[in-house]
Parts: sequence; C-alpha cells; structure tokens
Amino acid sequence: MLDWIAFDADDTLWKNEEYYLQGRAEFLEILMEYGLEADDIHKFDRFEVENIRYFGYGVMSFILSMIEIAIKLTNETIHPRDIQRIIQLGKEMLTHEVEVYPGVRELLDELVGKIPLMLITKGDLQHQRNKVRDSGLGGYFQVLEVVSDKNPRVYQEVLERHQVQPARFLMIGNSLRSDVLPVLELGCWGLHLADHPTWSHEDDQLAEGAFPRYLEAAEITDVLGVLESRGLLGDSSS
Amino acid sequence: MLDWIAFDADDTLWKNEEYYLQGRAEFLEILMEYGLEADDIHKFDRFEVENIRYFGYGVMSFILSMIEIAIKLTNETIHPRDIQRIIQLGKEMLTHEVEVYPGVRELLDELVGKIPLMLITKGDLQHQRNKVRDSGLGGYFQVLEVVSDKNPRVYQEVLERHQVQPARFLMIGNSLRSDVLPVLELGCWGLHLADHPTWSHEDDQLAEGAFPRYLEAAEITDVLGVLESRGLLGDSSS
Repeated sequence: MLDWIAFDADDTLWKNEEYYLQGRAEFLEILMEYGLEADDIHKFDRFEVENIRYFGYGVMSFILSMIEIAIKLTNETIHPRDIQRIIQLGKEMLTHEVEVYPGVRELLDELVGKIPLMLITKGDLQHQRNKVRDSGLGGYFQVLEVVSDKNPRVYQEVLERHQVQPARFLMIGNSLRSDVLPVLELGCWGLHLADHPTWSHEDDQLAEGAFPRYLEAAEITDVLGVLESRGLLGDSSS
Repeated sequence: MLDWIAFDADDTLWKNEEYYLQGRAEFLEILMEYGLEADDIHKFDRFEVENIRYFGYGVMSFILSMIEIAIKLTNETIHPRDIQRIIQLGKEMLTHEVEVYPGVRELLDELVGKIPLMLITKGDLQHQRNKVRDSGLGGYFQVLEVVSDKNPRVYQEVLERHQVQPARFLMIGNSLRSDVLPVLELGCWGLHLADHPTWSHEDDQLAEGAFPRYLEAAEITDVLGVLESRGLLGDSSS
C-alpha cells in the first residue's frame, strides 16, 4: 500500500532536543554569572525564531542567537571569554556522539528491502550529513533530503522528484508541525511519534478526525505495530 | 553530446567573493580600532579553514570564525558591541542583493530546452536557496543540489542520482578545485571560468593536457562559444 516511507531524523531516529536543552542550560549558567535569572532567557526564544530567516535551522543559528542575546541581556558587559564559551558549546553540540534511539535499527531492518526508505531532515547541511554518517544508519536510506524548511511546498517537491503518489507516501516524525501536518495536507500518510521530545516552537495540536491518513505511535518501537495493524506494509496479516 | 550541464552558483552565475572580501575589510576596520594591523588578519584564514569541519562552508561559518579570531587577536578585550557589529556584518552578507553576472541569463536562455540544466552549490542551505530564489534564475534549472562539499564522491553521487554518464556531463564553474578537478577525475567535462574571482583557498593549478575533457573560458559570456566550437551542443556547426 506504500511506495515510500520517509523518516525525520532529529528526535525521531536519534536524540537531538536533549542537546539543545543542555546547551540552553549551560548558556543560562553563563548568564547567571552576570546576575541574570532563568526568566530572562525567555527573550532568547524570540531572538532564535527571528534569526531563522537569516541563519535557517540548526546549531549555528542557535549559537549566533545565543551570542546576540547574551550581548543584549548583559547590556554589552559580557566578557569575550564567555562568548568564546558559547561558541565552544556550539562546537560540542556539533560533534557530540549520535545516540540512536533503541528500536530504530530493528525497525529499519524490518522495513529495508520491502519498501524504499528516505530520510528528510532540516538543519545545517554539514551537521546533518555528519550525523547520518555517525549514526551508522545511512545505508538504510536510498535518499537523503536535507531541506531548508518543512512545509507542504517542500514535501511536494520531494514527491515530484521521486514521482510518488501522495496516497502511497508515509512520513514518520516527532513534530506534528514539521513532519506530519504538511504531508497530511498533501494527502499523504503522516505518523506522529507522540512521546518523542519536540522543540517548544513546534508544539502543535491536531483536530481529531481531520485527516484520515493520520497515524500515531507513542514511540519508534510502536511504529511497526501501527503500520501492520493498518495493513500498510502489504503482506501483513490485518 | 551532453546529457546534462551543471553550473556552480557563487562567483559563476553571480557575485559572491566580493562580499566576503568586503566583509573581511569591514572586519579588519573593527580590529584596527584595537591597534591591530592588516597582517594580523592572516591568522584568520587558518581559523576559517579549521572551522569548516564544524560549521561547513558559508557565511555563518565565516561569522563564527571572525568572532573567534577577534576574541583571540584582541586578547579578549574586544567590546561586545563590536562582536554584535560582526554578526550584523554577517546578516548583511546573508541578505544582500544577488547580483547576477551580465550574460548569464542570455547563456541560460540559449541552453534551456536544449539540454537539462542543474545547479550544484555548496554553503549554507538556507542562504543558497534564498539566493537561487532572489536571482530569478531558479526556473532554468531542473535540479538544485546544495552539497556540503565538492569532491569526486559527492559528484559521483549526483551522477548516480540522475543516472548520467560521466562523458555526457559537463560542470561549469569558477573554482578549479571545487567545480572542475573533481569532475575531470570522474571522466566528466569540466569548464573553468578562468577570469572569475575565486576564494584564495581554492587557487589551484592544472597540468596542461592532463585531462582531455578540460575546457576553459575567460568569462561566462565566452561559454557558449567554447561549447559550440567543441561541438558539445550537438546541433552546432563545428
């Protein structure tokens, strides 16, 4: 019933948000040395979102936003040494180990060979490619798409590039806003990993019953069961 | 005789290096306020190259390297206001007008419809896509490949993805190292725009006669003549 299954990468196949939260916590520690409090960091979110139009999504955008907000919040009194610490923080985020979620490899082992798999991820190009390499999962995917945004137009282009019918395309991911809603709007299948972490700016709601091709699983380990129960893998029992 | 023609973007279709040189000059002006001299900026180059492994190619990598070197060169005495100026410099580089070289549109008008065209560019994903959009040239290209590096492996993947024979693929660009040498090594045609500006780290030499499919043109306006004189467009006179 499906011709392609596409996966999001960050927070779908491996940990990601955790490193941002950790980066934010270490950033806050630096700011607290200047007498700033946890609440002050809220202004930071707005900066990060505003900077997307310049820097896109990813760690570099995050670092540059952190530097800008640190300069503003300290009224230009931050010591350059601490700006170097922020950059170092970013370098660590860019080179940390890729921690693949338990069950991912088993799921991909089940699917590979039966149906072509695609990875669709957004963020810094170099960083995303490095993570695919370091995860050891690259071999499962026939196609790697690093995209600058995840909206219906971008997914439409992916479908056209690979000549896939929407009704025969499934996208699996942790973010309703980025991975699921845009493909549902195109008439594709979208599977939301409801218990995986999500960036706070991508918290979204979905009206019940709005999309018949909407699927949900708590964790990546539940995906195979959901697909089989809906008969989406063709040769399954149900 | 050719199935695809691929173009590099930065400094091939539109100005790019000029903005980096301008960014560097403005950066130097900031450092000179701290008593530093033009020669000191040489250390900056090494930093920029070392940071590629973290940040890849592009303006964000450039900004972060500038900030790091400014902190080091001023012995951590740089005023945060000046770090903000560096970030602002980067934002301007990311949003400046895209200045397409004279003759580009005429060349593409000649080629489009006769042969499929592809754009292969490296750098920040968001920035590269924005520039393609702002150039107004996106419609000429059937394929846009934003790659994290330009080496034979990456070009090999592009050839495989689009099922092109090397002998029927031509890449046109300003950089011998990035646009021409790697495709020549794969047995493709490579056309070097010898008089277009190039990043100093990509200055390279090519031994005469080493590759029979090596082509050269001074400027983008000379490309059509070179292709026709070699009979590479099929229906030409020679």
